[in-house]
Amino acid sequence: MNATSATFIATPSEVGQKFERARELVAPDMLEVNRLILEHLQSQVPLIPELARHLIAAGGKRIRPMLTLLAARMCGYRGRRHIGLATAVEFIHTATLLHDDVVDESGLRRGNPTANSVWGNKAPVLVGDFLFSRAFQLMVADGSLQVLRILSEASAVIAEGEVAQLVTSNDTGIGEEDYLRVIRAKTATLFKAACRIGAVVAERPETEERALADYGEALGIAFQLVDDALDYGAERTVLGKEVGDDFRDGKITLPILLAFARGSEAERDFWRRTLEELDQRPGDLERALEILRRRGALRETVERAAAYGERARRCLDIFPAGPARDALSDLVDFCVARAF
Amino acid sequence: MNATSATFIATPSEVGQKFERARELVAPDMLEVNRLILEHLQSQVPLIPELARHLIAAGGKRIRPMLTLLAARMCGYRGRRHIGLATAVEFIHTATLLHDDVVDESGLRRGNPTANSVWGNKAPVLVGDFLFSRAFQLMVADGSLQVLRILSEASAVIAEGEVAQLVTSNDTGIGEEDYLRVIRAKTATLFKAACRIGAVVAERPETEERALADYGEALGIAFQLVDDALDYGAERTVLGKEVGDDFRDGKITLPILLAFARGSEAERDFWRRTLEELDQRPGDLERALEILRRRGALRETVERAAAYGERARRCLDIFPAGPARDALSDLVDFCVARAF
Repeated sequence: MNATSATFIATPSEVGQKFERARELVAPDMLEVNRLILEHLQSQVPLIPELARHLIAAGGKRIRPMLTLLAARMCGYRGRRHIGLATAVEFIHTATLLHDDVVDESGLRRGNPTANSVWGNKAPVLVGDFLFSRAFQLMVADGSLQVLRILSEASAVIAEGEVAQLVTSNDTGIGEEDYLRVIRAKTATLFKAACRIGAVVAERPETEERALADYGEALGIAFQLVDDALDYGAERTVLGKEVGDDFRDGKITLPILLAFARGSEAERDFWRRTLEELDQRPGDLERALEILRRRGALRETVERAAAYGERARRCLDIFPAGPARDALSDLVDFCVARAF
Repeated sequence: MNATSATFIATPSEVGQKFERARELVAPDMLEVNRLILEHLQSQVPLIPELARHLIAAGGKRIRPMLTLLAARMCGYRGRRHIGLATAVEFIHTATLLHDDVVDESGLRRGNPTANSVWGNKAPVLVGDFLFSRAFQLMVADGSLQVLRILSEASAVIAEGEVAQLVTSNDTGIGEEDYLRVIRAKTATLFKAACRIGAVVAERPETEERALADYGEALGIAFQLVDDALDYGAERTVLGKEVGDDFRDGKITLPILLAFARGSEAERDFWRRTLEELDQRPGDLERALEILRRRGALRETVERAAAYGERARRCLDIFPAGPARDALSDLVDFCVARAF
């Protein structure tokens, strides 16, 4: 039985258990990361911790800092540097979320009102800047120019990806390659960097650094593909995100591209009207869901995610077997199988 | 004749000449900074250079990178590192401007439409993030952890200052100390850091680094005070900024605080209605200008700016006389006297 089919038959509770097992392995480190997060949110301006805590405490899984912690452990690292760097990774991620909320004007994130629906567009932009600066302060305190290089470059690529997504938004004419380029930049880049710096702090050879980078990138792509499928296929109560957010924003994701390519002329007209012209009427979301299912677009998106997941898992082969490697493998299952 | 009165009698063309003289001294370096700016704006996503160039080419004086260049020169520095770091400083400033435009919803900056009035709120936030990341990439390429520490801390303080300004906005009850704390953070911090890193690259002793930091901070406060006075006192054609922007936003600046403190009860009601409740009617801006002049609020704001300018100038005393020191002194005159 290969892992892809194993993924398909995993039950939600099995998937949740795998995630918990991975988290438990680095639970003491994560406690310290959480402490550092709260410590570095401190500011003489009370709105900053208030607003940032709103997001950071909102129950995100903190998968990115976990990646840094697990990667460092798998590389045999025994020091303390991975704590501060995992915190920096989470701060960069949170800053991106805050700025992304401004951008998307989406009303919910993880089931809670987004920061900008409570505080307007202004504060989240500035608090994001603050967190971004704090991330760099943490890296400076760590003192590794290599880590600073990896994460400053990652930040630039993420911003480029977000701008590219803006440009290709509402355009059903983009190709799958454009879409993949965007998610590789905006999502996979930080997964990749988070994993890579685990090898850097452990001072492992270039091959291991590259293997972890490749693992993180493939995992990040799988994660985003599943996210895009979930936007059309999960219950709000489970996902903490309204089904159809992307639809309402006119975001062109892989499920749409697949359904568009396979669609009738009437269906293409439907996608153009709803996503390009943003002319959406009652019943349109339901029709979108029906077309996506009938065209197999959601299933294929998740299958592609599973394939990226397998690619990620293979990158782990060069590392010694053990609980950390198992945990990174479990995270692949989690990222892919949460779609089911 | 002391310099303050000299400032008061300087004509606009004399002030412009002083600025030009300072700029000419570092003209070759500024050319390289401009080249680096364009080079590092490059991206595979064309909207990024397009949008950033819109702002960067909009005719800003680039006073912050000039400060780094002049400070390095005054410290006897003969290398090339100040070029990249001056570029990083300008990128941080530009990122702040882009994010500030989102925040203020102001319609004009330097006489041109702001980036967000052309591209919406989305792109400027993300392009700001890109520039901020590029700034850190430039610092990483430079390789000095000390510079990275100074500028990452400065960035955090700037963001804090912007959030603090948001919180105190529309509140005529804030004190002058609150206001000064905000402008020290949001404006003076980058002036300070820009000057300080000039001493750092030149590897000058702590006393000189501190003197340049103090110079930059005092100059930055003077600059912002004058800016706040200009918002009520200059012609749009001269300033490239609509008179009354701050008034329309309900920003509480020193001129307002002074007029409020000295005002009659009717005047205070006027300020509360227009700036706290943002209930503004035709003729209100004219009335605001009349009150500000009658209460001497603009004049006193500029006098305080001149005093900070003098404080900045005195910080230069420990450095050897020469064209770079003269230029930094000229910039004090420019920052203060452009109010007249």
